[in-house]
Amino acid sequence: MAYHMYVHGYSARESERLADQAQTLTEILHDDTRYPPGSRVLEAGCGIGAQTVILARNSPSARITSVDISEISLQQAQETIRQEGITNVTFRQGDIFQLPFEPATFDHIFVCFVLEHLTEPQQALEGLRPLLKEGGTLTVIEGDHGSTFFHPENPDARQAIECLVTLQHQAGGNALIGRQLYPLVTGAGYRDVRVSPRMVYVDASRPGLVEGFTKLTFTAMVEGVTDEVHRQGLMSRDAWERGIAALYRTAEPDGVFCYTFFKATARR
Amino acid sequence: MAYHMYVHGYSARESERLADQAQTLTEILHDDTRYPPGSRVLEAGCGIGAQTVILARNSPSARITSVDISEISLQQAQETIRQEGITNVTFRQGDIFQLPFEPATFDHIFVCFVLEHLTEPQQALEGLRPLLKEGGTLTVIEGDHGSTFFHPENPDARQAIECLVTLQHQAGGNALIGRQLYPLVTGAGYRDVRVSPRMVYVDASRPGLVEGFTKLTFTAMVEGVTDEVHRQGLMSRDAWERGIAALYRTAEPDGVFCYTFFKATARR
Repeated sequence: MAYHMYVHGYSARESERLADQAQTLTEILHDDTRYPPGSRVLEAGCGIGAQTVILARNSPSARITSVDISEISLQQAQETIRQEGITNVTFRQGDIFQLPFEPATFDHIFVCFVLEHLTEPQQALEGLRPLLKEGGTLTVIEGDHGSTFFHPENPDARQAIECLVTLQHQAGGNALIGRQLYPLVTGAGYRDVRVSPRMVYVDASRPGLVEGFTKLTFTAMVEGVTDEVHRQGLMSRDAWERGIAALYRTAEPDGVFCYTFFKATARR
Repeated sequence: MAYHMYVHGYSARESERLADQAQTLTEILHDDTRYPPGSRVLEAGCGIGAQTVILARNSPSARITSVDISEISLQQAQETIRQEGITNVTFRQGDIFQLPFEPATFDHIFVCFVLEHLTEPQQALEGLRPLLKEGGTLTVIEGDHGSTFFHPENPDARQAIECLVTLQHQAGGNALIGRQLYPLVTGAGYRDVRVSPRMVYVDASRPGLVEGFTKLTFTAMVEGVTDEVHRQGLMSRDAWERGIAALYRTAEPDGVFCYTFFKATARR
């Protein structure tokens, strides 16, 4: 069985970062996912519920079941949903590789920021497929750290991002998985696979994204692994600090930052 | 005066490549550029007319003036336009840094795949600005080789692309200019600057782009500098060949290829 670990950890600051990220990216990633009233939806890997809130709000009359392997995350997700007054979500603990559901239980399955953490992402998708009713849909959203580019260019910033890719790889994940959604979903036996890239393009004319994405989401995520990078000596402290500074530099009025998420849809 | 050189050269195969490229990318890059009947449009840097044909077809009643510094390119552009039966384009030889027009001559200026070849792109934009009537628009389209990523990953392919960036830099150009359009256009004094990325995302479900973009446009462009790379010894012959093979590999059924163009619009 594949080993699953959430590389970013579960600290309070991390929870905040994920909430920020979810809010800023809502339109770009989620706006075209709306499930009909009464349809049964499985969210596989809900984490602390950052995407669950959006999912439930965009499909207020769908019946959503959100599962995660971590009880701690589930409790937090449950609390978030309660505070938001959302009532169409049920939570259940479970391993994405052996979920406790009968075949053909769901009309739709939604998987967001989960495959990047799995050693066997295609196997996970294969296991989810029988849970869909005939003709049911799969939606997958993933990022891709290798899609990052920015102005001004900076080699230390590039190397800092490479460190993130290395750490995620050590943890059994894949930070470059976004670009691979088409072969993964196709390889798992789904049909009508359609992938669309969702680039987050940030310049000074979009101050919400400068704050919400370049600084509070992406650069905060890179900064989040500072201790581990130093523990392993992946970069010198000076180069690391220059890299982080260079990422913040791209948030200045003449800077530009680009990152691409990928969204795949398919049918059973 | 800045030195201008077209790094890809002017061979017959190159002309073919540019025509292929223009056709495949037409929708992604040009569909939202339509100029009203009777408006005066300047195409600054028309080359062999690959974009001129699209521009003229999409705005059949606009009066287009297309200029280029190269008489050879202009002749070819003129011939292409004639063969296509297009009648709303006038050609004129001129240097983008000192064009022979009165101030406030044009309603719209269009600049496509030109800035990447200039040592002083912002200066060129500054010089174009007075040629616009009050409230007139500027449209700029550029690629960015550093935006390229693909699956399967391959270090030799990355290095081959780096060679292209190096050669363009040697020629006084900038193959990473796409991401810089916002600061460039803003810095040149235009207002209401809006940049939108246009990613060409290619997987096996889009066979036209697999052929027309991954193979016939991008990889053909990289292959086009093989001799110069070897002359300068930028990469070993083996590594270069592995890199080219790896780029073609991304056109296989389980491969993915991504490249981003940027389109800026602004007002005088």
